[in-house]
Amino acid sequence: MKLVRFSRQGEKVVQYGMWRDDHVRAIVADPFQDLIVGTAEWYPVETVTLHPPCLPSKIVAIGLNYRDHAEELGMEVPDEPLLFLKPPSSLTGPDTEIVCPPMSSQVEHEAELAVVVKKRAKHVSADDAHKYILGYTCLNDVTARDLQKRDVQFTRSKSFDTFCPLGPYIETEIDPSDLKVECRVNGELRQSSSTAQLVHDPFQLLSFVSRIMTLEPGDVIATGTPKGVGPLVPGDEVVVSIEGIGELKNRVVKE
Amino acid sequence: MKLVRFSRQGEKVVQYGMWRDDHVRAIVADPFQDLIVGTAEWYPVETVTLHPPCLPSKIVAIGLNYRDHAEELGMEVPDEPLLFLKPPSSLTGPDTEIVCPPMSSQVEHEAELAVVVKKRAKHVSADDAHKYILGYTCLNDVTARDLQKRDVQFTRSKSFDTFCPLGPYIETEIDPSDLKVECRVNGELRQSSSTAQLVHDPFQLLSFVSRIMTLEPGDVIATGTPKGVGPLVPGDEVVVSIEGIGELKNRVVKE
Repeated sequence: MKLVRFSRQGEKVVQYGMWRDDHVRAIVADPFQDLIVGTAEWYPVETVTLHPPCLPSKIVAIGLNYRDHAEELGMEVPDEPLLFLKPPSSLTGPDTEIVCPPMSSQVEHEAELAVVVKKRAKHVSADDAHKYILGYTCLNDVTARDLQKRDVQFTRSKSFDTFCPLGPYIETEIDPSDLKVECRVNGELRQSSSTAQLVHDPFQLLSFVSRIMTLEPGDVIATGTPKGVGPLVPGDEVVVSIEGIGELKNRVVKE
Repeated sequence: MKLVRFSRQGEKVVQYGMWRDDHVRAIVADPFQDLIVGTAEWYPVETVTLHPPCLPSKIVAIGLNYRDHAEELGMEVPDEPLLFLKPPSSLTGPDTEIVCPPMSSQVEHEAELAVVVKKRAKHVSADDAHKYILGYTCLNDVTARDLQKRDVQFTRSKSFDTFCPLGPYIETEIDPSDLKVECRVNGELRQSSSTAQLVHDPFQLLSFVSRIMTLEPGDVIATGTPKGVGPLVPGDEVVVSIEGIGELKNRVVKE
């Protein structure tokens, strides 16, 4: 099932739905229930706007979780997952604009598989982690590389408004163990890897994070990016695509 | 005015209120309105439980913002404010327990003045910052120092559940420019400084952060800690006190 958040053209209300073929079907309440129930409301996809597919109370991201990306940054792969946070204010949906801030002159893309949490998780084992996962989506961990290097702490460089495109769908029925992760800028392939190359897989990550902070429904874990990160400049179109999930497309503009 | 969030004994509902003398008076809706309006509901303080005084969508913390604390860590004071985030799941109220996790063997206190945001703030100047501030409260930026050193990134070490005691009140009528900030553990004075020693003051901080991420009502900026950070062990009672605001007291326990 492909879950979305959407609004109808000309309306402000954002609701949860299921995307199927060329329609979006509204669902009852939200997908963080024991049963996801569709309503009788179906809308043609060309009449809706997609939003980020969930509203995380926190976005936990993992640094240096592909060996080849650690190498290209000249950094070591840490023994344990390396955590940082992106604020909810950095979220943006598919087909929106990534805004390059005046504070940085080096904004870069980072294509990532994102895990969406289904229910409250605290001290969950890796074996049980799948029970706490609603599904998977695409995330672009946009980073001001110059500020990341200057600050050492990753926070500022990854927290600007619009620096966390997420979507378009949460795919609930997929095995995350070997999915192609790609990033294209203006059609040119920049990143191409597979989640099989992750140092720590989604289940290990959810377990590890849940031993530190209680995860809430809709929370997101960004699993890290493979090598090939590179510049985004105003005018670019950047697409993160993950096999079996979909394509997350955004335009880059100047503030 | 001293703003709180409270629940009545035996009730689960948490509401906003004003603390005056030995009563708490409920207010209409929340304090993020043009006018804060009291209701006719007054409760004796001994019949209520206090909660964190706001519900931030993000907690933005500033590292190394007192020169003497940077020195005790052997670090340089950065030219610009150094940002990190604490997740909302780390919040806890006054008179609750700080839980030492098995992952760390060196949990420490950090007494801080916290700024509470009143209304949405984006690209605000330092001169205008006061218009976006609801008030000030006490925050304990509890930190697993061993993990902070090991990870370099501050996130894990500062993100455990209960690692962000906040409260007891948001004081709305106070000048933050020279307030005594203290921390006592089992009655022993550990930290003692003044907000006059801040490298970047609250108005500069709000302005700087608002040029990176949109601040929302109830968001918190933790302004950094002075020297004197030190260990917390199970059984300790830790009190952060800020002149003119109040005392934030918590017990330390083992997980």
